[in-house]
Amino acid sequence: MTEPTRPGPFRLGIAGLGTVGTGVIRLLDEHADLLEARAGRRIEVVAVSARDRSRDRGIDLDRWTWCANPAELAGLAGLDAVVEVVGGTDGPALDLAQAALKAGRPVVTANKAMIAAHGFALAETAEANGAAILFEAAVCAGTPILQTLREGMVGNRVDRIEGILNGTSNYILSAMERSGEDFAETLGEAQRLGYAEADPALDVDGGDAAHKLAILAALAFGLRPDFAGVEVEGIRDIRAADILQAERLGYSIRLVAMADLERQEGAPARLLQRVRPCLLPADHPLADIDGPTNAVLAQGDYAGPILIQGAGAGSESTASAIVADIVALARGEARPAFAVPSAGLVPAERADSGAREARYYLRFVVADRPGVLAELAAAMRDARVSIQSLIQEGESVGEDEAGITIAVVTHKAPARNVREALAQLKDSPSIAEPPLAMPIMMS
Amino acid sequence: MTEPTRPGPFRLGIAGLGTVGTGVIRLLDEHADLLEARAGRRIEVVAVSARDRSRDRGIDLDRWTWCANPAELAGLAGLDAVVEVVGGTDGPALDLAQAALKAGRPVVTANKAMIAAHGFALAETAEANGAAILFEAAVCAGTPILQTLREGMVGNRVDRIEGILNGTSNYILSAMERSGEDFAETLGEAQRLGYAEADPALDVDGGDAAHKLAILAALAFGLRPDFAGVEVEGIRDIRAADILQAERLGYSIRLVAMADLERQEGAPARLLQRVRPCLLPADHPLADIDGPTNAVLAQGDYAGPILIQGAGAGSESTASAIVADIVALARGEARPAFAVPSAGLVPAERADSGAREARYYLRFVVADRPGVLAELAAAMRDARVSIQSLIQEGESVGEDEAGITIAVVTHKAPARNVREALAQLKDSPSIAEPPLAMPIMMS
Repeated sequence: MTEPTRPGPFRLGIAGLGTVGTGVIRLLDEHADLLEARAGRRIEVVAVSARDRSRDRGIDLDRWTWCANPAELAGLAGLDAVVEVVGGTDGPALDLAQAALKAGRPVVTANKAMIAAHGFALAETAEANGAAILFEAAVCAGTPILQTLREGMVGNRVDRIEGILNGTSNYILSAMERSGEDFAETLGEAQRLGYAEADPALDVDGGDAAHKLAILAALAFGLRPDFAGVEVEGIRDIRAADILQAERLGYSIRLVAMADLERQEGAPARLLQRVRPCLLPADHPLADIDGPTNAVLAQGDYAGPILIQGAGAGSESTASAIVADIVALARGEARPAFAVPSAGLVPAERADSGAREARYYLRFVVADRPGVLAELAAAMRDARVSIQSLIQEGESVGEDEAGITIAVVTHKAPARNVREALAQLKDSPSIAEPPLAMPIMMS
Repeated sequence: MTEPTRPGPFRLGIAGLGTVGTGVIRLLDEHADLLEARAGRRIEVVAVSARDRSRDRGIDLDRWTWCANPAELAGLAGLDAVVEVVGGTDGPALDLAQAALKAGRPVVTANKAMIAAHGFALAETAEANGAAILFEAAVCAGTPILQTLREGMVGNRVDRIEGILNGTSNYILSAMERSGEDFAETLGEAQRLGYAEADPALDVDGGDAAHKLAILAALAFGLRPDFAGVEVEGIRDIRAADILQAERLGYSIRLVAMADLERQEGAPARLLQRVRPCLLPADHPLADIDGPTNAVLAQGDYAGPILIQGAGAGSESTASAIVADIVALARGEARPAFAVPSAGLVPAERADSGAREARYYLRFVVADRPGVLAELAAAMRDARVSIQSLIQEGESVGEDEAGITIAVVTHKAPARNVREALAQLKDSPSIAEPPLAMPIMMS
């Protein structure tokens, strides 16, 4: 730590001047001295790129070299690293990242879609060219979960990760819990309040959480990211009645992202990655996560369960994570993208999710006529799913034009058998709407 | 990350072969390949030291060079770092750390007492000799809070930290909550179950949490550690009746370690450090922390509040943290001990804790005679502490030989005024036992 000669400034090019890019610039300005003390050198923005130079961002662009095309930053002389906050799975973001790494220039990105899809290829390019690609901001923004896994838990084998990785969905589910309102109304309110995008699909259908999960699983388990292998189900079909019924049973409903490894002697470990709404018992560490918060629970074999929680989005939080990566680079701490060199990352073998056993919450909307319960029960019996409790008509969780709502809690059963039972009922005239199935997690 | 020549093994000397030292050895053995992949080089133990060579630890000592005196490790040829798990504020641990650093040899330690007392001097020695001293394990064992502050939140100014830093106290308080039993019985049970030491003083009187808090505050705020400046109060005086009463009011009681900075224009920031039992509202992030768990909530100006929680003790968890530091050293990542070079650490100016305002929970055991309430009320009035609610005889939280228990909740008042009210009552014949005062935290 004694430095005979203090290193010169660490010079950045930033591609993308939306709220995140300008947030990074604001943070670097506001904390310039603090960061210099912590990084051991000055951190300076020297070049920027954005689609539209004339847009008013409240910052003076004349301070920096302007690049009309982000890819120019890859080759611009005098840069120590490039920050990519353009966004998009492919296109300009990927072009810039690849070009910069090929030029031996480190890349910091917040782009979860790009890393989930191309992270392995980018890691290979980075290593081949002696550069680094860091993406703390891609998972839970400023809540430093990647770093916790890669550094703090470096001495652990981690075999299981559970998380609440999408703040919008969690905001909606906890708001539904409080208000008793249905999904559509709650989404509308979330959109008005800025917690949900005009097009909420990526958030409420689980895609955003799936991007993050694929990155987390790769880094924690030493595998190549397998975004396509994430089983995804969103929260659109959850009703106020489900939340109320779950509450009565002692559970809260959360969109849980889960990845675990099935290890077995003499065969490669098999990976299960799943994003879906689940029932969480009150004493589960994720059951209390409320509002637009993200949280990750990682199970270390030495450290035990570590929970980290905080904001999972927002320009300031995202800027915090990007700056953490920048400081690591400025200090010369260039680690492999996924904790181990890419040659050590093995392709994930997928686990058979149908074989996974859990208790299930099932919700049916059925026609109001005799024999319906017998039909349900028979379908469950035929699929070898045994019923633990059935909340019948008298205690029904709701009733509308479509029919009577019935909730069933099953004993432990393989996912495949539950699917089979539901498939058998699919075309029955007794079933007024497609049923909903959610696993019940253990604490 | 392309390495023309792979670096040789990273060679360790370990001083102290108690449960932590042997835990480190077990982890390094069990995860040797994983660690090599992650650190980019092999990590090897080459020398050990302990008081008694003949004790059976279930490990073969012949694998390593034996040093009868830990200080020998400081100068032993061929070591890349020394792990100090001897323990003790001064004595052999400090001698070893100082000698190793003076020899330019990095030190990894789990010794919170030593770092809280001598951390600044050790940081100076380290820097003067181009070595590093790392102590992740000293605070919350394997729950990587130092790293979260120093790396993950590096882009943030942190002005406030709150934590549950002592697992034994938290175990006892949450067990009292569940069982309704008093402190002494619960401590006895915790001792039988191995959650409390035979001499529990350091845990239940707050000293252990104070060590950790002084380290956390120094690192988060860029100050020299000021262990002597931590105001400490333990949990021995808390009764089952207090916990029950708090619960009725909607609070849980936890031993909270809190540090914050009062910043003011044109004057040095002033530090408040406090370990004391507090009432936490149900929606406070620390209110739900149960059992022997540690948790820290750090308020970043960009990242927002980050909560990290996990085991705070135990040989495996501690080994996890020590190995994280070892890997950082093996990778060549030697950072300043307290996040910035020691020359940048300013001595803490202490804040005036008496001026801090809070609502308070006060518990009195009073004689059963007329005029007692009037006397209490008068003392409060004289000290300008206004009463929000007083749980009187009829609803009293308990009654025993000593007298009647009365609980008072105050409006916001400076700590000094509350102390003054209690001092005024101290010698009153109406007061059967010394009263207890606990601040009520805000969510």
